[in-house]
Amino acid sequence: MAEGKRVRVAVIGVGRIGQRHARALATEIPAADLVAIADVDPDAARAVAAELRVDRWTADAGSLIADPGVDAVVIASSTDSHAGLIAAAAAAGKDIFCEKPIALDLDATDAALDAVAAAGVRLQIGFQRRFDAGYVRAKHMIDAGTLGRIESIREAMRDPGPPSQAYAATSGGLYRDMTIHNFDSVRWLMGDEVEEVYAIANAVDPMFAALDDVDTSIVTVRFAGGGIASIDNSRRSSFGYDVRTEIFGSTGAVFVGYSRDTPVLHLAADGVHSDHVSWFLDRFAAAYTEELRAFVGCIVAGEPTSVSGTDARAAMALAYAADRSRREGRPVRIAEFDRGTGDS
Amino acid sequence: MAEGKRVRVAVIGVGRIGQRHARALATEIPAADLVAIADVDPDAARAVAAELRVDRWTADAGSLIADPGVDAVVIASSTDSHAGLIAAAAAAGKDIFCEKPIALDLDATDAALDAVAAAGVRLQIGFQRRFDAGYVRAKHMIDAGTLGRIESIREAMRDPGPPSQAYAATSGGLYRDMTIHNFDSVRWLMGDEVEEVYAIANAVDPMFAALDDVDTSIVTVRFAGGGIASIDNSRRSSFGYDVRTEIFGSTGAVFVGYSRDTPVLHLAADGVHSDHVSWFLDRFAAAYTEELRAFVGCIVAGEPTSVSGTDARAAMALAYAADRSRREGRPVRIAEFDRGTGDS
Amino acid sequence: MAEGKRVRVAVIGVGRIGQRHARALATEIPAADLVAIADVDPDAARAVAAELRVDRWTADAGSLIADPGVDAVVIASSTDSHAGLIAAAAAAGKDIFCEKPIALDLDATDAALDAVAAAGVRLQIGFQRRFDAGYVRAKHMIDAGTLGRIESIREAMRDPGPPSQAYAATSGGLYRDMTIHNFDSVRWLMGDEVEEVYAIANAVDPMFAALDDVDTSIVTVRFAGGGIASIDNSRRSSFGYDVRTEIFGSTGAVFVGYSRDTPVLHLAADGVHSDHVSWFLDRFAAAYTEELRAFVGCIVAGEPTSVSGTDARAAMALAYAADRSRREGRPVRIAEFDRGTGDS
Amino acid sequence: MAEGKRVRVAVIGVGRIGQRHARALATEIPAADLVAIADVDPDAARAVAAELRVDRWTADAGSLIADPGVDAVVIASSTDSHAGLIAAAAAAGKDIFCEKPIALDLDATDAALDAVAAAGVRLQIGFQRRFDAGYVRAKHMIDAGTLGRIESIREAMRDPGPPSQAYAATSGGLYRDMTIHNFDSVRWLMGDEVEEVYAIANAVDPMFAALDDVDTSIVTVRFAGGGIASIDNSRRSSFGYDVRTEIFGSTGAVFVGYSRDTPVLHLAADGVHSDHVSWFLDRFAAAYTEELRAFVGCIVAGEPTSVSGTDARAAMALAYAADRSRREGRPVRIAEFDRGTGDS
Repeated sequence: MAEGKRVRVAVIGVGRIGQRHARALATEIPAADLVAIADVDPDAARAVAAELRVDRWTADAGSLIADPGVDAVVIASSTDSHAGLIAAAAAAGKDIFCEKPIALDLDATDAALDAVAAAGVRLQIGFQRRFDAGYVRAKHMIDAGTLGRIESIREAMRDPGPPSQAYAATSGGLYRDMTIHNFDSVRWLMGDEVEEVYAIANAVDPMFAALDDVDTSIVTVRFAGGGIASIDNSRRSSFGYDVRTEIFGSTGAVFVGYSRDTPVLHLAADGVHSDHVSWFLDRFAAAYTEELRAFVGCIVAGEPTSVSGTDARAAMALAYAADRSRREGRPVRIAEFDRGTGDS
Repeated sequence: MAEGKRVRVAVIGVGRIGQRHARALATEIPAADLVAIADVDPDAARAVAAELRVDRWTADAGSLIADPGVDAVVIASSTDSHAGLIAAAAAAGKDIFCEKPIALDLDATDAALDAVAAAGVRLQIGFQRRFDAGYVRAKHMIDAGTLGRIESIREAMRDPGPPSQAYAATSGGLYRDMTIHNFDSVRWLMGDEVEEVYAIANAVDPMFAALDDVDTSIVTVRFAGGGIASIDNSRRSSFGYDVRTEIFGSTGAVFVGYSRDTPVLHLAADGVHSDHVSWFLDRFAAAYTEELRAFVGCIVAGEPTSVSGTDARAAMALAYAADRSRREGRPVRIAEFDRGTGDS
Repeated sequence: MAEGKRVRVAVIGVGRIGQRHARALATEIPAADLVAIADVDPDAARAVAAELRVDRWTADAGSLIADPGVDAVVIASSTDSHAGLIAAAAAAGKDIFCEKPIALDLDATDAALDAVAAAGVRLQIGFQRRFDAGYVRAKHMIDAGTLGRIESIREAMRDPGPPSQAYAATSGGLYRDMTIHNFDSVRWLMGDEVEEVYAIANAVDPMFAALDDVDTSIVTVRFAGGGIASIDNSRRSSFGYDVRTEIFGSTGAVFVGYSRDTPVLHLAADGVHSDHVSWFLDRFAAAYTEELRAFVGCIVAGEPTSVSGTDARAAMALAYAADRSRREGRPVRIAEFDRGTGDS
Repeated sequence: MAEGKRVRVAVIGVGRIGQRHARALATEIPAADLVAIADVDPDAARAVAAELRVDRWTADAGSLIADPGVDAVVIASSTDSHAGLIAAAAAAGKDIFCEKPIALDLDATDAALDAVAAAGVRLQIGFQRRFDAGYVRAKHMIDAGTLGRIESIREAMRDPGPPSQAYAATSGGLYRDMTIHNFDSVRWLMGDEVEEVYAIANAVDPMFAALDDVDTSIVTVRFAGGGIASIDNSRRSSFGYDVRTEIFGSTGAVFVGYSRDTPVLHLAADGVHSDHVSWFLDRFAAAYTEELRAFVGCIVAGEPTSVSGTDARAAMALAYAADRSRREGRPVRIAEFDRGTGDS
């Protein structure tokens, strides 16, 4: 882009995370110009536009995609709309930031990626953890060789309690909705591709059993280069939002942790008490801004994004493989989900 | 104010902290409208105005104070200008947010407070710690009786290294520049007035000795109701920005602490390593926004501010008393600095 | 035993852990009387006896087992001698404390257990973790229902560096030597039996590959009642001795952790530094005494021990299953190692 | 002493701390031989002797002091007996370990020290903190220059709740009973002598006011070389036993802290909970053994002890000065309590 020009961004979908993105673009990222808001609910679009002093709002995302006054779109609408919007935006030559997942099936994912490739536009997927200060620090230490060869990784990710039944029913299940973040994370941190996964899981809450889904899971991951990883997930931590990663190398380890929400300790006769971060929007508040700042920055600099559609496809294939593993009770090779295997 | 109206704010002085305030008003506080920027350096004013898309900038603060399109001013210019700007803004009927201190002498402080009282405008002093989530939590626990009767308080506040000689020379010295935050904090947390202080101090760095100032100090504080407190300060922590408070009550204690900047632990053969927050603008980033949000919120709601000019005067009197104590080697009663004692 | 009588104990094998046990019996457990020391190296036996002021020492463990002046034996000799000594001691009517494992093969383990059952003597296996204050607290919380239903468990256990090749060659491999502690721990904490395990592992250090062993492993465990667990192991932490357990229940979680060896934080310009416990004898120093105190206490009280030969057999079967899983690349059911399956 | 000889020790006084010492000498310090127990209550002496298999016990401490079969005495009887027993033991040529304080008045302290000097025996005072692993580490860092020049020290020491009225009445008051540990600690860590102290204090609990004592105190300390320190004390923490020290140097700081009793975190919907060490005998369990090990080791090695009577006298003078300061409301110079000032 020309020096000093701002990237004109439209946000499509202003639910919980879309609102967050719109606010960040409007107030925290000087290089971005939030020019329009779309939502299938026009009242929602209007309300967010008013709060953020954005002149244009609409229920018709297509009109924004077609608008030459829009340089890039941020897609935060419902999952089933992602692939279609990606294809349309790519065809219109817009750079695209899209919340994960691209789609709940691999064929649709591949089709959307093909559209992006054909158009030569940018596509960044919302793996916000890659922009969290703690994870960024860990990744730098890995890349700098501080930890030596990475031998194993442990990831934990737990929500404080189950989502609504409506959300769960359309989420694609634990692996495509939650573990997908861990799948991206372990690939990124290990710097290697996964060969095989194995999953054991449980539906403690009958709601998940009724949906043929699970709420508690452990996935083990074997990388091509010999590294191994485990991923613990739960929809039911009861104590808060729990995201921790431990990376073990030949010359040291790094733990990316988080637990205390406020730097306060209460000491009383019954012990020492502190609080715990309760929600992913709190834990990753800065990361959600940083990922958009990076996206806009890539456009300004004329560079590719650091999180690609290929990354999204790879994480989704791992989710498929984990789900197959837990259903069939066997380790599953990722090659079963390669393009053209007929399996995706 | 009328429902839905935004408070039109001008920022006077866009050095380090003034820029921070301007940005918060422009992007993080929906109820505020940043309408103008003033700075004695017009280039600085213009640059900040451009970045934040503010139309109006000037080197003449007086013109903004006189402007009927300005509802409130945020004063972040050099300390020696504070009292005069407060008086002028008060006379013009503007609500005022002013960085501490009001002035380096008590007579000027009292004169400014008289002007505010005569005009009936709001005056909030920038004791940002009162808006920090940790301190707010602690204060709530105290007010709720969770800790019982507060018996003692320990405060620590350390800068990573000395300021420039130029800053030090006009800062008013350790007690009026740094400890003043602790003086406000212990008064607020104890919910009581101080009767007497005693200070011992040292100038480890000869620069401070040359300025008749100190860089290392312990002040003890005795409250009217029997509570006691200690305040440790240093300009020379070497390891980072160190702000911690411990509050001991009859049924428990609360520690407001802070040390780690990133939630990362590095474990290696030579031990376990983490980082430390290095700067007050990082430690209190959210608090600086929250204090302005509260200020603007009070104007919108038609309520008085929670940190008053009286609070600023009280903290300044404590700073005076501590300085006298360290010079004269004796405990000093605050009554020595009451209005009309001829001592202020 | 008669009131006030002391349990007369002989220690067989005074290598690293045997010396530790002898010292605890001699000095920390008032109800025990350390009456004799045996070691295949008579100089070692004599030296330990002299230090602890024990009159009797020998290279002939059998003579102590036959001695009517010995009530109980603590077996801490080399693993290959355990099963034979257990059988002999049982035949002589002695109560037995034996370091894990009973034997490196299940048939020998079963034979030793049969001898114990036939003689009706006590047998306690050295799973010292069950007597660690942290694990005891966690188990109490589980038993008290504080955590609700236990849904999953995460265990980590890492040595700071590989053992000697000589040790590794006769250790039975990672699963029978190290993970066996975790297998016992997850059974005990979950309060349930394991149905199936799955293991992925690696030999980063070629020494282990040459021994057909591994040094880095993740085992996942599925319990009969639906609970799941993961166990991370490494011989190569590089940073210290790392033993942590996280137990997740329906109403809360408990973490049994440990990292700092000394309660000291060093804060410097390059960050915050602390140390890490480096060795299992330090981490579990108190637990090694407590397990013997409990053993002696059971004899005095005429009660069974809380860690039985059955527990040792179950943990060993899990080790077998994990080893088979990592070799065959499939989940392995524990039933494959039941008595009489021909598989053990 | 001759190589291989054990130091024959008698313990005088087997209350809480004397029992602890006797047990350590009997079981944890190979170079010591616990040969006799004395207590004014013969039943107490007999019971401890029986438990520890010591043949000799008596109500007559003098007979043990006179016994040529005793090399050293550990004095843990009531404070009012210390000075007389020290003088008697010194006259009999015994090395002496004595609990603090030597006496509650400085004249008696000086007389006892004179007797020790005249006899040329060893005298070690029970400042156990000097043998705690955390404090030892900190002292090593200071001596190694890791922290640069020590500029200030913060000490906190709190008991969980008040002692009995009987104990409080004969304890000598907060400064001679509790703060004396901090006075010794800051002298030792700063490696300098104190010039002046200032104390503010309160008796929140009326029991202390009735005894002309206080339960909450802050003492500030000014060293000859310019260093400064603060000492916070309370008899009323309510949450546990709180002993922490922070040492700030020109190139870094070290915190010796302690809070968690068991390495367990409980995470639940109402927050994160851990426990707190509750009692000094738990916090300093190892240090109580190490101080005796060091004492015995000095005798065996023919070296002077590392904590001398002079140290005890210096700490007691600080206690006197702090008490005078809080009564007279002024900073008090330690020179007021030099020998021959008529003030002691």
